Order: sequence, then structure tokens, then C-alpha cells
Amino acid sequence: MIDHKLDFAREERTGVAEAILGSGKSAEQIASIVETVLSAEARMLITRLDPEKARALGRFGEQVRYDALSGTAEVGVPRIVSSVPAVAVVAAGTSDMSVAQQALRTLAFFGESATLFADIGVAGLWRLTERLEEIRQFPVVIAVAGMEGAIFSVLAGLVRAPVIAVPTSVGYGVSEGGHAALSSALASCAPGVLVVNIDNGFGAAAAALKILNVGRG
Amino acid sequence: MIDHKLDFAREERTGVAEAILGSGKSAEQIASIVETVLSAEARMLITRLDPEKARALGRFGEQVRYDALSGTAEVGVPRIVSSVPAVAVVAAGTSDMSVAQQALRTLAFFGESATLFADIGVAGLWRLTERLEEIRQFPVVIAVAGMEGAIFSVLAGLVRAPVIAVPTSVGYGVSEGGHAALSSALASCAPGVLVVNIDNGFGAAAAALKILNVGRG
Amino acid sequence: MIDHKLDFAREERTGVAEAILGSGKSAEQIASIVETVLSAEARMLITRLDPEKARALGRFGEQVRYDALSGTAEVGVPRIVSSVPAVAVVAAGTSDMSVAQQALRTLAFFGESATLFADIGVAGLWRLTERLEEIRQFPVVIAVAGMEGAIFSVLAGLVRAPVIAVPTSVGYGVSEGGHAALSSALASCAPGVLVVNIDNGFGAAAAALKILNVGRG
Amino acid sequence: MIDHKLDFAREERTGVAEAILGSGKSAEQIASIVETVLSAEARMLITRLDPEKARALGRFGEQVRYDALSGTAEVGVPRIVSSVPAVAVVAAGTSDMSVAQQALRTLAFFGESATLFADIGVAGLWRLTERLEEIRQFPVVIAVAGMEGAIFSVLAGLVRAPVIAVPTSVGYGVSEGGHAALSSALASCAPGVLVVNIDNGFGAAAAALKILNVGRG
Amino acid sequence: MIDHKLDFAREERTGVAEAILGSGKSAEQIASIVETVLSAEARMLITRLDPEKARALGRFGEQVRYDALSGTAEVGVPRIVSSVPAVAVVAAGTSDMSVAQQALRTLAFFGESATLFADIGVAGLWRLTERLEEIRQFPVVIAVAGMEGAIFSVLAGLVRAPVIAVPTSVGYGVSEGGHAALSSALASCAPGVLVVNIDNGFGAAAAALKILNVGRG
Amino acid sequence: MIDHKLDFAREERTGVAEAILGSGKSAEQIASIVETVLSAEARMLITRLDPEKARALGRFGEQVRYDALSGTAEVGVPRIVSSVPAVAVVAAGTSDMSVAQQALRTLAFFGESATLFADIGVAGLWRLTERLEEIRQFPVVIAVAGMEGAIFSVLAGLVRAPVIAVPTSVGYGVSEGGHAALSSALASCAPGVLVVNIDNGFGAAAAALKILNVGRG
Amino acid sequence: MIDHKLDFAREERTGVAEAILGSGKSAEQIASIVETVLSAEARMLITRLDPEKARALGRFGEQVRYDALSGTAEVGVPRIVSSVPAVAVVAAGTSDMSVAQQALRTLAFFGESATLFADIGVAGLWRLTERLEEIRQFPVVIAVAGMEGAIFSVLAGLVRAPVIAVPTSVGYGVSEGGHAALSSALASCAPGVLVVNIDNGFGAAAAALKILNVGRG
Amino acid sequence: MIDHKLDFAREERTGVAEAILGSGKSAEQIASIVETVLSAEARMLITRLDPEKARALGRFGEQVRYDALSGTAEVGVPRIVSSVPAVAVVAAGTSDMSVAQQALRTLAFFGESATLFADIGVAGLWRLTERLEEIRQFPVVIAVAGMEGAIFSVLAGLVRAPVIAVPTSVGYGVSEGGHAALSSALASCAPGVLVVNIDNGFGAAAAALKILNVGRG
Repeated sequence: MIDHKLDFAREERTGVAEAILGSGKSAEQIASIVETVLSAEARMLITRLDPEKARALGRFGEQVRYDALSGTAEVGVPRIVSSVPAVAVVAAGTSDMSVAQQALRTLAFFGESATLFADIGVAGLWRLTERLEEIRQFPVVIAVAGMEGAIFSVLAGLVRAPVIAVPTSVGYGVSEGGHAALSSALASCAPGVLVVNIDNGFGAAAAALKILNVGRG
Repeated sequence: MIDHKLDFAREERTGVAEAILGSGKSAEQIASIVETVLSAEARMLITRLDPEKARALGRFGEQVRYDALSGTAEVGVPRIVSSVPAVAVVAAGTSDMSVAQQALRTLAFFGESATLFADIGVAGLWRLTERLEEIRQFPVVIAVAGMEGAIFSVLAGLVRAPVIAVPTSVGYGVSEGGHAALSSALASCAPGVLVVNIDNGFGAAAAALKILNVGRG
Repeated sequence: MIDHKLDFAREERTGVAEAILGSGKSAEQIASIVETVLSAEARMLITRLDPEKARALGRFGEQVRYDALSGTAEVGVPRIVSSVPAVAVVAAGTSDMSVAQQALRTLAFFGESATLFADIGVAGLWRLTERLEEIRQFPVVIAVAGMEGAIFSVLAGLVRAPVIAVPTSVGYGVSEGGHAALSSALASCAPGVLVVNIDNGFGAAAAALKILNVGRG
Repeated sequence: MIDHKLDFAREERTGVAEAILGSGKSAEQIASIVETVLSAEARMLITRLDPEKARALGRFGEQVRYDALSGTAEVGVPRIVSSVPAVAVVAAGTSDMSVAQQALRTLAFFGESATLFADIGVAGLWRLTERLEEIRQFPVVIAVAGMEGAIFSVLAGLVRAPVIAVPTSVGYGVSEGGHAALSSALASCAPGVLVVNIDNGFGAAAAALKILNVGRG
Repeated sequence: MIDHKLDFAREERTGVAEAILGSGKSAEQIASIVETVLSAEARMLITRLDPEKARALGRFGEQVRYDALSGTAEVGVPRIVSSVPAVAVVAAGTSDMSVAQQALRTLAFFGESATLFADIGVAGLWRLTERLEEIRQFPVVIAVAGMEGAIFSVLAGLVRAPVIAVPTSVGYGVSEGGHAALSSALASCAPGVLVVNIDNGFGAAAAALKILNVGRG
Repeated sequence: MIDHKLDFAREERTGVAEAILGSGKSAEQIASIVETVLSAEARMLITRLDPEKARALGRFGEQVRYDALSGTAEVGVPRIVSSVPAVAVVAAGTSDMSVAQQALRTLAFFGESATLFADIGVAGLWRLTERLEEIRQFPVVIAVAGMEGAIFSVLAGLVRAPVIAVPTSVGYGVSEGGHAALSSALASCAPGVLVVNIDNGFGAAAAALKILNVGRG
Repeated sequence: MIDHKLDFAREERTGVAEAILGSGKSAEQIASIVETVLSAEARMLITRLDPEKARALGRFGEQVRYDALSGTAEVGVPRIVSSVPAVAVVAAGTSDMSVAQQALRTLAFFGESATLFADIGVAGLWRLTERLEEIRQFPVVIAVAGMEGAIFSVLAGLVRAPVIAVPTSVGYGVSEGGHAALSSALASCAPGVLVVNIDNGFGAAAAALKILNVGRG
Repeated sequence: MIDHKLDFAREERTGVAEAILGSGKSAEQIASIVETVLSAEARMLITRLDPEKARALGRFGEQVRYDALSGTAEVGVPRIVSSVPAVAVVAAGTSDMSVAQQALRTLAFFGESATLFADIGVAGLWRLTERLEEIRQFPVVIAVAGMEGAIFSVLAGLVRAPVIAVPTSVGYGVSEGGHAALSSALASCAPGVLVVNIDNGFGAAAAALKILNVGRG
């Protein structure tokens, strides 16, 4: 058996605890890593974990808490989550909810809470403007959108907070796989849009945590 | 010498008179085509004509009218342009002006006038909203934008007119060549966005003319 | 549960009622949206809905009308459809029928009727020419084709109506996913071809509606 | 100095004499190859040769015959060209003429003559149909087109001869570089279209020669 | 029901009888087309037909002859196949056999026989050289290869016959989907390589038939 | 003349003052915008401004301060720059210096100072490790790299600060245009890497400013 | 039945015995090849063999030894494996283990042993540095990584051995399919990185064997 | 002025002395680096240096030795070059000579000599076979080719030495930029082909040196 070299010092070093990708690993490999984590009385987040593999972790009981919508599992003792939401998670459509939820779950894993703003698409701009003042109160904004990703530019032109854009693989034809939304985010005419990989709600949350830490010294 | 088979019946057949691309043809080839057109007492538009080739057409005098910003030349007797603007041409940035001007010039060639709305970028949404009521009065809207092309979706979600999106090659990195704006236009979450090739202000104007003809029977 | 922010004012604002993508949403999410629509006594179209998810909407009875060929479902009270077809829908091959049907269903949802011209491929040009006079009577033409999409240029060179090109994902090798047909539509040498995303029969119909509205004032 | 290993036996072996690409080689390298060819009393074709490099070959006089439109140079004693044209070269637009001319020059280098059909674009289908009977008389057809390359499918659906498609780099936006036309040729719904590289008029002519040789035993 | 506009005059017009793609059509659509063909006492080839859809054609008995390796079905009365093979079909590897077989079946449908040369990869060049003299006897060569497609250039440099390259989707990583082999065929340094779409054994055979017809007047 | 709709309220609204792209605009267009800015006693940054266009701004004297290495020009009264550097700008190679300088200039325009860490490539890891403790003192890190962009992941795995990755167009072959470095940044296995467009030092600096503002309330 | 032309002389000629790809071949085709190999008392490696096809080889018993993790099967008499490991196989993550194992199995098939260094990712650089001295003892290093592939450059900057980079298809979004890791490997700023196709552990091992043979004369 | 952090320990650490890219750096930046190197009495290679920048290094006299064909400059005291050539550099065409020369110059900089085999294209296979025995004597082979890169597979199937493939940017259409040759090299059906970036003769030579060092212990 492979001896897993987990990076338990990562949180100390970078502020962000270790997380692993569930896709690309077999259920056996994941279970073996979970065991190593639990033996070390450590914590870990698993992302992109499909329900079938999650079931194979059933024997760990409450030590592994799976959420199907986001495809994430928390391993180890849960952290107490802050009661003051510090991040606005803005999702463009219902199809983007699983990635938005991935960001929310990751923030909770880190002890942060966040507020979800759903169905904020630009085709009906009033859906954004009616909630804009509320969104503007947050120090960090995570925006989650597929298709053409126009929301990234519109939002970043309206708020003071850094906007972390998470393109999603929602779409078909030219937007299949999320590349159109990714290009929109990177090419945004609004300065200060920061971009993570397609569907990477985890990365956006990790970056948001790092940014919040700047504010907290 | 090649005997040019110009399609003088095209306007009769499709409602849109013949136009040719200046790029990819030598100055000699273009001059020879112009001669054929003038001999036939016909009219033609040349697009993507660079200044150097335009100079080589100087001998035709006022029969060939060149516009440097748009890179277009009108050949033959000008048509009287309608006094009522029927098309709103919305340009996102100063860099998009040459393509917007190409659309305006093409419309004038067809006898249509249009109103230009410049600097309507989404990073400052007020620039759009303060002119929205005015734009909403037009039966057809041509939107011209490079970078991430977010304006296409925002605009199409706010007006009743068909929106013809012209992505431009303005940008760098992922938006170099206009492919990011093109994908945004095609993937737009706002229904009813119609798209033409990158930098194709001519095609947008030709389509606008066809749409106006629908309204006029 | 998420509170759906549906855009019921969209039809008033843009002339096109709200529609949602079935792909990328779970059956539960879709059912929940349908409930919101029906409670509001509104109407909605669902596109790209696979049969399995459609079955999960069975409990809504006749309030949700599914069509398997096009993968669309109409939600709410049907609108009376005009008896005069206003749009010609030209499909290049049998494989393009599901996208053509998506356009037809969308037009019907909007209250418009259309005439389908099937099997109009360019490899046998007589199939187009023998029906050309008929097609030329329509104020708007939607052309649906995969493979190399040559029909877009041929058709647009022969009719006065605006031609809305819908590239389809029919094909293999270089035409897999519809990108060859999309490029053909955008690069068309015939002026005035307007393009929507691959397989987007809905978008073509929405644009056709907007164009017809131009004619109707 | 490099000792050039020219493949003088290629014509014997494959029916097609050696040719070299002028682009990518310095004027000195080309002159040195020409010397080797002339010393061997052999023949060679140079393609993609720009005028500046051609001038550097001036000292060889009539032994090197340059044609600026096609960018080709014949080296060595000219072959007698057949008086019966065996190939129809169909060019879609004026911008495609340099590639069409490359094919014509290559055929002449091989001793074949051909007939050029210019300005045969599909946006004005009558330009094709009025010459169709003439084109149908040829045993082999070379079709040269950029933009969306719709002519390849239309033509191949109308003639018995094999159609060799030469996509050209004429175009902009999605057709820049010739990739849209290339995909159209490969994805053609008309069976029996044969394709060569973008702008490769030489390759089309070489293949036409091989096909004609089939007919001649 | 849709009334199929089949192109029964295609063989007369182009020398190649109609064929349809099985992929992208439902079993019902295909069965309906088959009925139209059989009612007209015509013949047709179906390509890219998977076994499941083929089973749905079982009720037509011997009038529809399916071959699983190539995924093709012949519809109608079989033609007598020539006893003299006129085409060499060279396949690079075992994985390319289904595409090679598609070419063989298509040739047989047209009444032509062919000789298969299997396992002719360039990594073991002796496999080609030991059969080269035999291959050189054929007036037309079809070469079928995936991966890097090096065989196309090697073969075309050794034979007088036109070489029709069929890139296959065999491979993984950079050769997944057949694009590496396609580029190799198009970029071949050996003049006279003619290329068809990835996996398009049918198109190669149709072109071969057209070429053979050149030879036969 | 076009009346420029500059977005002078942007700084108030988003914390980042307006900036424009010099590329894609003519010298006349830029001069006209500069005049508008100066008349309004406002400030503006111009990026991607080549030396020739910069010279055309010479008549504005010290009101327009051009820096050739970064291709940026400051317009208007300079802001006092903080004496405490708040951002570490890490550049992988000498070729990346112009983009790094663009970030430094932008920060100075915003009133922030930064420290440059040059020649921090991963091929000689000691160059990073010997300065790591110093870099770790900064609340925000901007990393600038072309080629394969490996530094992004290495750095992000070692520091607590958010890392803003700026891929540069430095490289050739697969890294030409900066796409390899961009993909590396987005796909980074180190959580919390935030990415901006290729060569977009301005965007990185704008985002850094927004992040610093989080810290300052 | 096809008569397989296996290349039994390949080992003699190139130092590397024949291997075949299991993907793209049917179970029957593979079994038939295995029979030919066993009849010839030869040896062969099968790669990319899925478990279902492997089961179909069960009747060959111990003559075909399948390993599920790597998807490889050894055919024929096993070779004695050297007791001195000559290759370091460095894998970046658990998801890369199947490709690493493919390399290990291939080396064993050739009679070489290797040492696996697992979980050597750059996000936790200590995992590399703590084993660096050990890795530096090997004459050849194979590095296996997906995602952004930063390990290739870091490792190559630290060791004297040639580094063979095997990008893997591990990842999602921009790294889906392994193209980001592939570009990283090719664009590496560390000189002397040698690259094989995505997921091609076999090719890396074959090259390692050839390199070791250089050392052994 | 920037203080250059050159990696003088790289040769000690990795066996390969530092080299820098001339492209992307200004003449001033390069001159400044050269000064640093000469002051340290070290050696360095500059690659991709165009003649204009090379002239700007004229003041260093014989300490900087420029070669125009390869675009390389050696800085510092030349090393004595081995009298026994250890590497075969095989170039497919005249256009590939500058990259081949880059490899030769790099090897000489490292003290190795090599033998050049020019004009070894596969379209005339005899050019390879007549020199094959000679090539087979070398422990390492570098193959340099653009276009379709078929030579990589053919060569690797015939020799025992590891083959390092250097795709070149020679070609047009689908082979423009060298991507077709790169894909061919990576997808090679001949095991053991090792690949470097397009036009990277330097990298190939550095890897060859590392491989030779394996042989020398």
C-alpha cells in the first residue's frame, strides 16, 4: 500500500488546509487517505466526489460528512463557523448552484460563513440591481456563472470588493465546458476581476479566505 | 486580364447590393473591379480597404469615396440617405469605433441612417442606463464590442428590438482576435441575440437592412 | 429551498417570455421552478430537457407539455397559435430535425406558426431549388444544418428575408460538436446571415419573433 | 556548404517531380539548390517564393521563370504543355486567384493545361450554374475557395469528376488562416470531396496529375 | 410523418449513389428512410450505424445487410462486385480495421472490389516494404491510419497512384479524436496526398470510385 | 468629434480609477481622451501604449508621464505614493519585466508602493528560497511569469498571502502568446491562486488594491 | 481472419519489444493477437486494456498477467527483473498512480526495476526536498503529473539525470485531458525536460530503457 | 538597474550550464546580463537572438560569438570540443537547418561534437535508408523536422538510440507554427520518441548531454 504523504502543515504555511480531488481517485484510494487523516486527528476536504464513491465512505459515519449538491465531503472534526457572513456568493443561474454550494461548503470548512445570492443573471438586470446594496456590504464577492459569464464584468463595475470569478461548465455549443465563461472573466473590461479554474468553487473559497486574512492581519 | 463576374442582380435577388473585401486583393485587382462597376453604372461597397490601396484608387475621383476610420469605400453614385435613423449602433469602447463606423457607412450606402451610441461599456453601467430609453426607440440594434462582450447580453435583456452582435478583435491575451467576444455573443443568456463574424460591421448592417425590409413589407 | 427569482417581466421588456435550460439542472430543481411558474399563473418554456427528467414532471399533467423529438416542454396555459405561418424553417438533413423542431415548438409557444422544409441539403441542389419560390414568400427564414453548413450561404444568396443560421452538432471528425457548421455560418460569403449558438433552435425562434415584431410595429 | 540531397528519382517513382518550398529558406539556400538542379540538368518547381527572394535568383536568367501572382518559379527546361486542358480550376473569388494560379502553374510545369473558371461563388449561384455544363466536361476539378468554402459541397454534388478542394487563407475572424474553409471541405455532405492543405495549390495539381495518370494507364 | 426527399438521381449526376449517416438519426427515422428506398426499388448505404439501431432494421430481412465491424448496412438489391480488385486499402493497425472495412464495404456497394493490406505501420518499416511492389500495382490507394499518421507520407513517396488518406480517431492524448493524424495527412511533405474527414472510409471509397471512373472514361 | 463618456465616478464606485487601453486606439483618439481627462482635472492611466503614440502626447508635457518599459502613461496630477510597500511583485525572468513594471506603475498610480523581486525562476529554486522569508512579509503577492508558469504553484504553496498570477506572453512554440502559463496558473494544484489575463499587470495591480482595501476596511 | 503481422524483430532492431494498445481493439482482436504471440513463443505488452477486455483473456491463464491499476497485461514468459532499480518514478498525486504504475510495469516487462516516489507535489515543496537526495542517485527520472505539471520544471532544475515528463489527463476545466500539463512540460524553463504523450507511461519507460542502454553501451 | 540573479551553480547541479532566451529581452537587458556573466568569468549561451540585437553586443568582441543561421551566441571562454561526435543530428529539410544548427551549437558549447545528416525527408525514403547504418552508430539521435514530422516515427522504428524529436515551425496551413509536427512526435507509434518544444534545438541538445552523461556515469 502507498504511504500517503499528506501535507498537514499546509494550513500553518499557507492559511489553507489540505484538500483533495475525489475525481481521478478510486474509492479505495480515497478511503485510504481518509484513514490517514483521521488517524492523524486532522481535517480535510474532498471535492468533486461523486455519490457512489461517497457511499463507499459510509463506514466512517459522521467523521465524513457528504453533501451531494456540491459533491464535497468534510473529513474530521467540524470547525465552528463564524456567525457573521464575510463573503457574498453570487450565482447566475440554478445550474450554477452546485459550484456555488462548493464554495459555501469550503468556506464553512474553513470556519467562514457566507450569504448566497441566487438567480442573479444579467438577462434580467433588475435581479442584480435590487440586491446590489446588500452585496456591496461584503468585503469579498465570489461570482459563479456559466454560459457567457457577463455577470463578472457587470458586478465588478459596481462593487468595491475584489470579485473572484468562478466560470462554470454550464452551457452547450460554444459555452460547453465553461471556456466561454472563462474567457469572459479573464477578458473582463472591469478592472480587478480575479479568476479561478472552471467549476473551481473550492479555489475561489480558498482565495477568499486568504483575502479575508489580509483584512484581519 | 480576368473578366469579373460581378453579381449586379444581387440587390434585386436578396435586397443587398454586392460588396467586396479589399483585404486579400491587390490594388490592381481592386481597381479593375471598380472599373467594371463604373462601366456598368452600378454601385459597390469595398470593405477592409487599407489606406495604401485606397490611394491607388485616387484616379477615380469622387466616384470612389474612401473613409479611413472604417476602411470602406463607396463606388458609384451615392444613394440618398433616409432622414429618419432606423438603427441604433451601440459601441462599447473607442477601440470599437472603426467597426461601428463600418456598419454606419454600410447603412448609408444602403440609404439608411443610424444613430451612434458611443462608449457604452458595462464596467460603468450608468453609461448604458442613461441612454437606454433612447436606444429602446429603434426597431433594430447593432451592438459592437470586443474584450469580453458582456454588453451583448445586458443590452438584449433590456430592449425589444433584435440585437445584432458584432464582436470585435479588440483585446489581448484571451480576447486577442475577438474570439472571447464572439463566444460571449453566441453563448448569451439573453434570448434573441444574433451574431455575425468578428469585425463584420458590414454583415451586421446588411442584416439590419433585411430586418428593416421585413417591417416595410 | 431556493426562492426562484423568475423574470416574469421579461416578455413585457424584451418581447420574449422566459425560458430555462433543462440540462444542468436536476429534476427536483426543474420541478420546483415549474411550481413557481404555475403558482404565478405564468408561462415558461423548458429546452434541452431529456425524457427522464420530463417524466419527473408527470405530476403536473397537461400543464407541462413535453415533446421528445425537440426535448422541449411548455409550462402553463398554451397560447393560441397564429394560422398564418410567418417563418420558414429549413432543415438540411434528418439528423437536424430535433433542432428544427425546437425552433418550431418555440415559435408555437410564442403564438407563431411556421412551415418546415425538410431534407434541403446542398449535395442535391434541386431539393432547394424546387422549393425556393415557396421559401422566398416568408419574411424570416431559419436554416438548420450541421456537417459543413454550406446551405447557409447558398440560401442567403437566394432570398430577401433575413436568414438565421442554426448550426447543429450533427457530424463527426472535424464537424463533431457543430463547430465546422458554426464557422461556415459566421464566415458566410453571403451578406446578412445571422448566427446563433450550436443547436440553439430556441434562440433562433426568439430572434425570429423579435424580427417579426419589427414588421408589426 | 550543405550538399543538397535532391530526389531526382521522385518523378520516376511517384509520377511527380520534386518541388521545394521557398518560404522558410533563405535566398542563399534557394540559390544553392537551384544550382544543384541546373548542374544536374534537372527540373524543379519552387512554391511560396516571395518577390524579394525571386529577385535574388535573377542571375539564372531564363532558367528560372518566376510568376509573381502565384509565387512560383520554374527551374530548368520548360516542358511542352498539352494543348487539351484536362483540369477545371474553379476559383470562388478574386482573392483566391493566387492559389488558383499556383495550381495552374504547377500543372503547366507537369505538362498539363487547365481551364480557369473565376468568380464562381455560391452567394450568386447563377455564376456556377451558367458554367456548370462546361465544368462537367473535365475529368478532374480543382476547387479553390476561402471564407466558408460552401462551393466545395455544391460543386461536388453536381459533377461526376473527383473534386479536389483547396481551402485558402482568405478571410478574417473565424475564417482567418483558412481553417473554416478547410473544415467545410473535410465535413462536406457531398461524397467524394478530396482535400489538401490550406493554400496548397501545388498539392492539388500534383494529385490531379496522379489522377489523370490513372485514366491514361 | 416527414416525407423523405431522397436524392435518387445522385448516382446519375455524380457517379456516387446516396448514402446516409446512421449516427444522429433515431432507429425510427432510419427505418422510415429504408422503407422509402425499398419502395422506390432503389439502393442506399447506411454508415456509422450502431448494432442496436441495426437490430431495429431486422424486419427488413436480407434487404438490409449489416456489417458490425464497419458499422455499415447495405439497403436494396446487391450489385455484382467486380472480380478484379482496383483499390489497395492499406491499414496501419488493427484498431484502424473498422474504418478500412467501411471503405471496403462501400467499394463493394459500388461494385468495386479491393485488396486489404493490414498491419502496415511505419514503426516496422519492413511491413510496408515487403508488400510495396504489390501495392504499387493498384491504380488507387486508400491509406487508413490513426496515431501520428506517418504512413501517409511514407506511402505517397513510394507509389505512383493517388493516395487517399483516411485519418482515424484511434489514439489518446494529443491523437485523441484523430486530429493529429488529420494534420499529418494535410501537412504531408509527399505531394499528392488527398485527405478526407476523420474515420470517413465511405468518403475515401466514393472518391476512389470517382477516380477509377476517370480511368474508365 | 466623439464626446467621450469617461467614467469619472468609477473610483468612487469600485475603488479603482478609470484606465484605458492604448492599443487599438489611434494617437488622435488617445489625445482627445487625454484632453477630456485634463479638462475635468481628473486622472487616468493608459496601458499598452507604444512609444510612437506616446510621442504624439508630447504636447501635454509633464501632465502625461510615459514609461517605455511598461508601456504605461499616467495622466493628470500624480498621487503621493505610500512609503510602505504593501505588495510583493515577483518576476520569473528578465523578459517578464515589462509586465511586472506595468503592475508597479499601476500601483504607484493608485498611491501604493511595492517591492520587486526579479529573476525568481523555478529552474533555480534557490533564487526563490533565499528570498522567501522577505516575500512572506507582504499581505499580497503578484507573480509574473511566462513559459510554463511553474512559479505560480510553487509560490502559492509557500506563502499565506493571496497570490495573483499574471501569465505573460513570453515564450515560443507551445508557450507562444502566454496560453501555457495561463493554463498553469488556472490549473494550479496550490489552492488560492487568483488569475488575470495574459500580460495584464494593470488588472493584477487593480485587484491587489482592492484586496488591500479589504484589510484597511 | 486477419493474419497479424507482428514485429518480432523490433526488440533486436530498436531495443524495445513490441507492445499494443488495448483501447480501440475489440476483445476478439486482442485475443487473436495474443494467440499469435504465444504461438511464436514471443512476448508482448498490452497497454490501456480495460478490465472487461482483460477478463476475455482469462482463458490464457498465467500466460497473460493483467494489472488493473495500470491497465496493462504482460503476455508470454516473464523476464527476470534486475534487482538494482535504475529509474526513479516520481508521481505528483494519487490520481497519477495508474500512469506511474504503467511505467513501472513496462520497465519490469523489459527486465528493469524502478523505485516509486509518490505524492511528490509542488504545493508542498518539502515533499520533494525531503526525498531529493534519494532521487538524485538515479541515472534516469520519470516524472508523472497532471493538473499544471509544475513538478517537471522544479525537478529538472534540481537533478543531473534526464527527466522524462509524462503529463497525465488528471484534472478538470483547463487541465481536462492533460493538455495544460503537456504544455507545461514542453515549455519548461528548465533545460533538458523530455516529454511523451499524455498518459503514456509506456513510452516513458521505453525511452528510459533506451537511455539506460546508452549507459551500458 | 536590475541586479541579475544568474544561476551559475546550475551546471554543477544539473549538468547543464545556464542559457537565456534572446527574444523577449531588449538589447540593453541582454548586454547587461552578458556583462554580469563576463565579470563572473562564467559562460552562457544565448538562443533566439536576432541579428540586430547581436550587433548591439559587438563591443564585447570575441567574448561573444554569434552565429546567424542558428541565432545563438556563446558568451565567455569557449570550451574544447570533443573530437568524437556523440550525437547524430538528422534534419528533414533545408528549412529545418537553423534549428538543427541551434542543436549543434549548443552541443559545441557543452563540449560535445555531433554529425549532421541533412535532407533526410521521408518523401524520398532512400535518403534515410542510404545513411541509416551510419546513424545507427550514434548513442543519441536528435531528429529535426517540421511539416507533418513523419520522420520521427520512421527513424525511431529503425534505431536503438533514444530519439529526441524537435518539431520545427516550418510549414503553412495546418502545419503553421509547428503544431502538426509536434503532435506527430508525441503521438508516434514508435516507442521511445522523446519530444521537446517546437524549434527548441537547445533543449534537445541539453537533454542529449544529460543522456550522454548517463552513459559516462
